[in-house]
Amino acid sequence: MITRDELAALDAADPLARFRERFVLPDGIVYLDGNSLGAMPRAAAARVAAVAEHEWAQGLIRSWNDAGWIDLAPRIGSKIGRLIGAAPDSTMVADSTSVNLFKLLAAALRLRPGRRVILSERGNFPTDLYIAQGLAALLEQGHELRTVTAAEIPAALDGNVAVMMLTHVNYHTGAMHDMAALTAAAHARGALALWDLAHSAGAVPLALAEAGADLAVGCGYKFLNGGPGAPAFLHVNPALQAEIRYPITGWLAHAAPFAFEPGFRPAPGIPAAGVGTPPVLSLAALECGVDIALEAPMAEIRAKSLAQTALFMRLVEERCPGHGLAIVTPREDKSRGSQVSIRHEQAWPIMQALISRGVIGDFRAPDVLRFGITPLYLRHAELWDAVEALRDILTTGAWRDPRFAARRAVT
Amino acid sequence: MITRDELAALDAADPLARFRERFVLPDGIVYLDGNSLGAMPRAAAARVAAVAEHEWAQGLIRSWNDAGWIDLAPRIGSKIGRLIGAAPDSTMVADSTSVNLFKLLAAALRLRPGRRVILSERGNFPTDLYIAQGLAALLEQGHELRTVTAAEIPAALDGNVAVMMLTHVNYHTGAMHDMAALTAAAHARGALALWDLAHSAGAVPLALAEAGADLAVGCGYKFLNGGPGAPAFLHVNPALQAEIRYPITGWLAHAAPFAFEPGFRPAPGIPAAGVGTPPVLSLAALECGVDIALEAPMAEIRAKSLAQTALFMRLVEERCPGHGLAIVTPREDKSRGSQVSIRHEQAWPIMQALISRGVIGDFRAPDVLRFGITPLYLRHAELWDAVEALRDILTTGAWRDPRFAARRAVT
Repeated sequence: MITRDELAALDAADPLARFRERFVLPDGIVYLDGNSLGAMPRAAAARVAAVAEHEWAQGLIRSWNDAGWIDLAPRIGSKIGRLIGAAPDSTMVADSTSVNLFKLLAAALRLRPGRRVILSERGNFPTDLYIAQGLAALLEQGHELRTVTAAEIPAALDGNVAVMMLTHVNYHTGAMHDMAALTAAAHARGALALWDLAHSAGAVPLALAEAGADLAVGCGYKFLNGGPGAPAFLHVNPALQAEIRYPITGWLAHAAPFAFEPGFRPAPGIPAAGVGTPPVLSLAALECGVDIALEAPMAEIRAKSLAQTALFMRLVEERCPGHGLAIVTPREDKSRGSQVSIRHEQAWPIMQALISRGVIGDFRAPDVLRFGITPLYLRHAELWDAVEALRDILTTGAWRDPRFAARRAVT
Repeated sequence: MITRDELAALDAADPLARFRERFVLPDGIVYLDGNSLGAMPRAAAARVAAVAEHEWAQGLIRSWNDAGWIDLAPRIGSKIGRLIGAAPDSTMVADSTSVNLFKLLAAALRLRPGRRVILSERGNFPTDLYIAQGLAALLEQGHELRTVTAAEIPAALDGNVAVMMLTHVNYHTGAMHDMAALTAAAHARGALALWDLAHSAGAVPLALAEAGADLAVGCGYKFLNGGPGAPAFLHVNPALQAEIRYPITGWLAHAAPFAFEPGFRPAPGIPAAGVGTPPVLSLAALECGVDIALEAPMAEIRAKSLAQTALFMRLVEERCPGHGLAIVTPREDKSRGSQVSIRHEQAWPIMQALISRGVIGDFRAPDVLRFGITPLYLRHAELWDAVEALRDILTTGAWRDPRFAARRAVT
C-alpha cells in the first residue's frame, strides 16, 4: 500500500512544482475542478486591474491602438495555436465555444455540399449536439445529426457524412479519442474532422497539424486557466482558409473593418472567423493563463497528469473498496485525458459532502463524481487527502446529512 | 455670442454634475468618444478586482452559485430592459451585438416564412448589413437584404418584407428614427421590427414596449459604459417568446442545462436567447455602468444631451466659419441622438490633431469628424475647449503636420 509520505516525496521532486506558486489557491482546499474552471493565475489579477485602471480609464478609446487591444484576440489565438500543435495563423480567440462550434459546423456543411450528416458520439458534451441540432433545423436542407458510440464511429463514416464532430476528451468519462486515426478515417471517406478541445487544450499533448485536423474549437476557462467564461478559440486548417465561408459575418471579420463598406468582404485567413468586438477584460485574463501553459513543458504536464490520474484511481480502489464506487475513466494511458470520473448512485450528496470538506470536484448527471487533474498546481499528497475525505464520507455515511441533498443551479 | 463663462455657469447648475465623479476621467482630456467606448465607472475597477481576487481565486467553481455568476446575464439584462422601456423578462445580456443580431434576424425570418426580404437602411452600421448578407447566403432560401434611404423605408415595406432591421440612432450621422412610427408601419405590412440600439441605450429615451418593438439588440460598451468589448444585449417582445426559435442552440439556453440531456429543449422565455458561458469579468464591469445609467433620470440625460449637442453645433458654426466644416447631424431635436457629426474633406488629420491636444472624438470614413456627447460626465465648458482646439487647428493649419496623416489600425 502506498503512503502519504511517499506522495509528499514525489511532490518534493516534482519538476512542475514551481508552477503552483504562479496560481492563487485558497487555503484548505484541494481543487479538483480545474476542468470546469481553472484556478486564477497570480498575474491575472494585476493584469485585469491594469487593463481597467490604465488602459480603459486613462487610455480610453486610444487603447485599441496604443495598448494593442485590437491584437489581443489574434495574438492569444496564435499562442493557443502553438499549444495545440496547429499551423501558424490558423487559430484565433473569439466568442464562446458554442458560438464557434456553430460557425465551424455551418462552414463545414458548406464545404461538403450534397452530404447531409453530422456524425458525432453519443454522450458528447450536450452543447455540441444541441448546436448541430439547431443548425440542421435552421438550414432546412435535410441535414441530420447522427450519434453513435465511440466504437461505431469508423463504420459510421459513410459517403453522406459531411463532418465528423467529436470532443477529443469526453467531459463525462475522461475518455480520449485518437485524433490522428479518426481524422484519417474521416478523410478516407471524404468527411471533414471537427474537434472540440474543451477538455484537451492545456491538458494533453495535441498535434492538430500533424493529425491533419480540419477544424477545432476549444474553451478558455478550463485547463487554460483563463477565468470564468473566458473567451473561446477556434482553429481552421490553412488548407481550408481560402475556401471556407463562415455564417456569421460580423464587421471585425471584414477585410477592412474601418472602411465601413456596405458589402461584406472577408479578411484573408483566420481573422475572418471573428465576428464582433471581443470582451477585452476577459481576454486579458485569458492571456495570463495561456502564457503559463506555454511555459510549462507539455511532456512534463502529460507525465504528471497520467501519474496523478493513475494514482487517484489506485488510491480510490485501495482505500475505498466496498462502497459501490465504479471508476469509468479508461485505465489505458493513451485513452485517458486529465480527469477521473467515478460512478456512484449517491454521487450528488457524496460530492456535496466532499466540497463541504474542501475537496472540490463536481457532479455530472446522472451519477458521476468528476475529479479534474491539473498538474500545474496539483500536489500528489493532495490526492491522498482527497481520497481520505472520500473514504471517511463513505465509511461514516456523512453524505446522508440532509443538507447535502439540496440541488443547486449550477452543478 | 456665447462665452465660456456662461457655459461654466451652466455646469455649476447642472443637475447631472454629481455623476461625473462616478467616473474616472484622465486629466487634460475632453472625452467626446463615449459613443465608441464609454468612460470607466469608478466602481468598475473595484468590482472587477473583487471578481478576480475573491470570486474567482478564492471561490473558484463555487462562485457560479455562491457569487451568483449564473444570474449575472439575466440580471443585467433585466436592468437594461428597464433602461430601454422593455417589458419585464424580455431582455438579456449575451454574446456580441453582431452575434445577437444574427440570432434575432434568423429567428425573425423563421417567424415570417414565405417572406424573403430583410429591409434596412443604406448607411446602416456595416455589421448589421454584413450579418444580414451572411445569413441570407447561409440559408440558400432566396432571402435578400434590401437597403433604401431613411425616407424610402415606409414605402419599401411591401408584403415580401419579413423584417425591418434598423439602427435607431445612426452611427455616422447621429440621425434618430421614430421607433414607434416605423414599427407601426412595419406591423401594418405584416413585417417584424428589429431595432439596433447600439447608439441609443443609455443615451436617449427608449420605450420598446410602448412602441411595440418586436426584437432589439444593443451594445454594452458605448453609452452604457460597460468596458471595452463589453457583452451585448438582446430583447424579444414577450408576445413572440413562445413561438420564436433561435438558430444557435447552446447549452445555457436549455431548459435544464445541468441535466445534460441529449436533445435540445429551449428554456422558457428570454433565457433561450443565450448560448454559451458568458465572460464573467466583462459582465461584472458592465453591471457597474448599467447601474449608474439606471440611477440617472433619463429626462435629465436627454435634456442635457440635446442642449450639449445643440451647443456644440452652435459653437462650431459661430467660431469656425469658413473652414469647410459641414454639420450632418439633424438640427431638429426629435431626429437627433447624442452625437454631433461634422463632414470635412480633411477629417482624418483634423481629428488626429484634436486627439493630440486631448480632445478625443473619432473619425468615420470617408470624411466625418464624430463627437459623442455623454451627459453623465461631460461639462458644457469642455465643449467650448473642444471647439477652441478645433478652431485653432483649422486657423493655424496645424492639421497639416505630416504626423497626423498616418492611418492607424482602429479609427
